[in-house]
Amino acid sequence: MTKIGMTNLGIKNPATLDFSEWVTTKQTHIEHALGQILPAVNIVPNILHEAMRYSALAGGKRVRALLCYAAAEMCGTNMLIAEAAASAVELIHAYSLVHDDMPCMDDDDLRRGKPSCHKQYDDATALLVGDALQSLAFQTLSDDALGNQANLQAPLMINMLNILAKASGSTGMAGGQAIDLASVGKPLTQAELEAMHNLKTGALIQAAVLLGAISGNHTQIAAISTYAANIGLAFQVVDDILDVEADTATLGKTAGKDANSNKPTYVTILGLVPAKQHAQKLYEAAIAAIAPFGDSAQRLRELATFIMQRSF
Amino acid sequence: MTKIGMTNLGIKNPATLDFSEWVTTKQTHIEHALGQILPAVNIVPNILHEAMRYSALAGGKRVRALLCYAAAEMCGTNMLIAEAAASAVELIHAYSLVHDDMPCMDDDDLRRGKPSCHKQYDDATALLVGDALQSLAFQTLSDDALGNQANLQAPLMINMLNILAKASGSTGMAGGQAIDLASVGKPLTQAELEAMHNLKTGALIQAAVLLGAISGNHTQIAAISTYAANIGLAFQVVDDILDVEADTATLGKTAGKDANSNKPTYVTILGLVPAKQHAQKLYEAAIAAIAPFGDSAQRLRELATFIMQRSF
Repeated sequence: MTKIGMTNLGIKNPATLDFSEWVTTKQTHIEHALGQILPAVNIVPNILHEAMRYSALAGGKRVRALLCYAAAEMCGTNMLIAEAAASAVELIHAYSLVHDDMPCMDDDDLRRGKPSCHKQYDDATALLVGDALQSLAFQTLSDDALGNQANLQAPLMINMLNILAKASGSTGMAGGQAIDLASVGKPLTQAELEAMHNLKTGALIQAAVLLGAISGNHTQIAAISTYAANIGLAFQVVDDILDVEADTATLGKTAGKDANSNKPTYVTILGLVPAKQHAQKLYEAAIAAIAPFGDSAQRLRELATFIMQRSF
Repeated sequence: MTKIGMTNLGIKNPATLDFSEWVTTKQTHIEHALGQILPAVNIVPNILHEAMRYSALAGGKRVRALLCYAAAEMCGTNMLIAEAAASAVELIHAYSLVHDDMPCMDDDDLRRGKPSCHKQYDDATALLVGDALQSLAFQTLSDDALGNQANLQAPLMINMLNILAKASGSTGMAGGQAIDLASVGKPLTQAELEAMHNLKTGALIQAAVLLGAISGNHTQIAAISTYAANIGLAFQVVDDILDVEADTATLGKTAGKDANSNKPTYVTILGLVPAKQHAQKLYEAAIAAIAPFGDSAQRLRELATFIMQRSF
């Protein structure tokens, strides 16, 4: 089922593409890779597979995949490995969105402008879709064919699997979600909010960057991690700002949701203008961290700007 | 967090223990191993970790772990590997029970005589508990320390991770659950029912046996798989019989649930007596498959009998 090897779809050399061409090329790659990895709808159980594809192929910016590809290009990583890692991270992200939208969590009917999985299907299907997408992420990164095709050392694959598992679990993304739920209606300090988002959003974004870098030349992994941590937080601050400033049609999900549900956000804690200043500070810290990489970090710099300027 | 190496808790040589002593010893081992693997309750997010421990350390027969240990002993597998595999399988099983009990699935308030996770905590916590237990299973099997301590070859660990991921996902356990949901109120043939249970219950039981065997001497893996497939189905047939014959106090979960919820079971499709005969036939096929292993398969034979004779 898993077929890796869509890295030659682009016609131009990635290094010569301008940023928006590069983004479009990589978004095409990841959509194609996920389309190959996800079981076809004619495989039993059909509805589950249809719902998995509905949820995981719903487009989106694919920021995590882009970060993974960019880090891989900077570190000279084999692109087969980068694509498998990017796919696995996007599958984990897709599962988390499906479960987060469920009535017992954020209860959101809209995702990327379409009915969320539990609205399009039902709660039980959404639960299983999330569960199965998570399994598929680990199946993708443990695929024999990947190791063989990429001449990837097995110890490295295990390390990648472990990074992804930790980033997903109770001391990563799922843990951040638990803290988020527990914090509804409670006053949080900025430090507490940041600790929560370091897990909820940051852990998987960091994993995306690390997994991209790890099998290449990563002598300065600490600098790459600092970039990833700062850009992960900046992403969340921008999210909180958009929740207040953007409308539902632009966001593709319900605007004002966090503020209305009494969830602490950077905007409610800091105020709108200081939140924007904070995002800028995090952006600058991310850019500073990768300065030693010079020109080779150009895509990561462009992605940082992309994350800051996004409107949805 | 993950600490492997509880295989020396037993005082006697496993081979000299009678079956009930062996079961008790191994149940103690797996509870201890899981207790070490699961994050402590004083680690943030505390409630999530408490709920994960509540759900995964709730005891039970640990049939999957016992099968894994028995196959490992038969195949001369390093017991550190077997214990990590047994733990990972039990974590996947624990996550599936937490999610299955949720209101949008089987809506069961009782599990092993105690409130199920969503009753003891809430739906959102139960959702995250299941999600995080799944991540932890893959984290456990990709632990660096495991490979180092057990002198385990990395390609073998990757193979084990892939087997577990496939057994858990949409063409394994989660897929079986989806078929089960879709079959409520529909007439199924015995073949369809069997296909469903081969995924829903069988896939993880087979994985438990295979993971136990795989890193040892497994020249006859087909025979071991046949044993596992038959005993996996027998387990489910007995489950369906118990759903009708046992009471709630003995089962520790709501008796008559499947029959009352109009789910097809072996009893509703075949009738009670033919269902019992079918279980016996599956048991005999399992026993026949491992005949070539002679005395070394004694624990697997005893476990097959254990599965047939269980009353809860």
